Amino acid sequence: MSWRDNLIKIEPYVAGEQPKKTNFIKLNANENPYPPSPKVADAVKNFNAEILKKYPDANAVPLTSAIAKREGLKPENVFASNGTDDVLSLSFRAFFNSDKPIVFPDITYSFNTVWCDILRIPYETVPVDDNFNINPADYKRENGGVVIVNPNAPTSIGRGLDFIREVMDANQNSVVIIDEAYVDFGGTTAVPLLAEYDNLLITRTFSKSRSLAGMRLGWAMGSAELISALYATKDSMNSYPVDSIAQAAGIASIEDEEYFKTTVAKVISSRERLTQELRKMGFNLPDSQTNFVFAEHPKYSAKDIFEFLKSRGIYVRWFNKPRIDNRLRITVGTDDEIDALITALREFIK
Amino acid sequence: MSWRDNLIKIEPYVAGEQPKKTNFIKLNANENPYPPSPKVADAVKNFNAEILKKYPDANAVPLTSAIAKREGLKPENVFASNGTDDVLSLSFRAFFNSDKPIVFPDITYSFNTVWCDILRIPYETVPVDDNFNINPADYKRENGGVVIVNPNAPTSIGRGLDFIREVMDANQNSVVIIDEAYVDFGGTTAVPLLAEYDNLLITRTFSKSRSLAGMRLGWAMGSAELISALYATKDSMNSYPVDSIAQAAGIASIEDEEYFKTTVAKVISSRERLTQELRKMGFNLPDSQTNFVFAEHPKYSAKDIFEFLKSRGIYVRWFNKPRIDNRLRITVGTDDEIDALITALREFIK
Repeated sequence: MSWRDNLIKIEPYVAGEQPKKTNFIKLNANENPYPPSPKVADAVKNFNAEILKKYPDANAVPLTSAIAKREGLKPENVFASNGTDDVLSLSFRAFFNSDKPIVFPDITYSFNTVWCDILRIPYETVPVDDNFNINPADYKRENGGVVIVNPNAPTSIGRGLDFIREVMDANQNSVVIIDEAYVDFGGTTAVPLLAEYDNLLITRTFSKSRSLAGMRLGWAMGSAELISALYATKDSMNSYPVDSIAQAAGIASIEDEEYFKTTVAKVISSRERLTQELRKMGFNLPDSQTNFVFAEHPKYSAKDIFEFLKSRGIYVRWFNKPRIDNRLRITVGTDDEIDALITALREFIK
Repeated sequence: MSWRDNLIKIEPYVAGEQPKKTNFIKLNANENPYPPSPKVADAVKNFNAEILKKYPDANAVPLTSAIAKREGLKPENVFASNGTDDVLSLSFRAFFNSDKPIVFPDITYSFNTVWCDILRIPYETVPVDDNFNINPADYKRENGGVVIVNPNAPTSIGRGLDFIREVMDANQNSVVIIDEAYVDFGGTTAVPLLAEYDNLLITRTFSKSRSLAGMRLGWAMGSAELISALYATKDSMNSYPVDSIAQAAGIASIEDEEYFKTTVAKVISSRERLTQELRKMGFNLPDSQTNFVFAEHPKYSAKDIFEFLKSRGIYVRWFNKPRIDNRLRITVGTDDEIDALITALREFIK
């Protein structure tokens, strides 16, 4: 008997490689190639550091109010926290306390299973079809909760409001979480359904379309009942909220709609070009509604392409996992980065 | 059967009141009355917001290296995260996986019981004596872990190395957490014992002696084995670490030893004056090794004093809890704030 017997048994999540060298192209973490709004830079530069001596605004009210205004909701329908991972793990703890398993697709954001393990929540995964589509009929079973990423990752495939409505109608006794981390890049948001379903929780992030991965900021939208349960859970696990600088930066980001639209449009335009170029080279990939593509080549192994690109200083994501181990997840970079990627791929394939 | 049946059942933690009015004296959250180091302000002002588009350094290595250097440790002995609450809740999850209850004093930081409830960890509390002293003999029992705040909160009483050593020697089969949130204000750190005990974890915060409550930054020190278990747990629950600006601010704070010493000395000096003045008015309070005092008056109820001070715009902390409901926890403010407090108390008591 030793204290070592009581250590957690866990497989750590492996994030996209963060190369130590400096001269490389990083298309492996779905980061935005463009900087955050200049108004965010101003908010940081002009931040009065003296106020850091006090704890932050407990419920980040100015930030949730700015989000609510943009989304056409009330502040009591918005919960802000330190990144969507934080929002999701708090949501799992707050909403999934049934003996029945929660359900989610087998191919989706890989954190779901880890949170279930850590929080001792039973779960079942449902296979997506061979084209990576989620079938709403699979979510018409007794469950303790439902989690769907829409558009889904790493598949890049998005579904419309009819799909969400079908899932909601079949799950009136569970909380349904729709993670919209990538929705700004062409997906369909479920926000219009919030007025109809008290058990719908939508999550968002500042890390992708708002270029603030380094800041750790995410939010959730739902009925006042769900949101207040999230605050109660957060207040209990970790008494103090989003740091004061992050709150200021988040507000500046939300309020600069024009910069947001311009950046997103650039990423979408680059993604369409990348998609066409990849298809010309023989890659198969679904139409993406995200800031990445999910591609396979019928003649070459994804692992070989991954290693070749790495040798050229280009980092993409390859998952050594069943069903997707011949696919590459490639983040949409700047046009120059995409050119370099295409040049390297042509060289590999020729 | 409704989704509401599966919501978490929890009593939210109630933090010190954050008054909405602006003209008040806030001595209820153990915040530092002085701003953070001017070097922190410079680090924020000069921070390059463009890098926020990328995820932060995953293990906050420059920050843990700066901390390790100051504490005479190696970087692999230091774990940094978003506030001590975050460090502690991750530690509970990482280290307390026994069927036996973890033990801690009945009068201590009130989050312990909440984390146990959330993480489904069995626990037992051990009463401190009538003078609020922790008796090391109480920790010589089979357990799944030990948590001691030293100096303790809200009692303000610190213990020396002999005490910690006695607890460690009796608990070689459990992880022992010593929370040193307040140690810089005159307590005795257990850092010298880290070389002897692989199962000792020490936690610290930037929120008190370093005036960075608004930033959410804390750290832990321990054997490489404990620290790597913390990283594995954190990587699994919440994939991305301390935000990039907070890392920069933390390094600036750690590297400005002179400002740190000056600020701490000012707080200690004000605390001694406050202690003397309170005793002159008949208050009983132990010698504090923290940035607050824990006082009772034999003739007046703490609640009445609390309400009177509040009516004068002075917020202190009163806990409506067994054994301590006739005590006030008063944060050491600036000299002007202490003068205002003493004037108001004299008026109440006269």
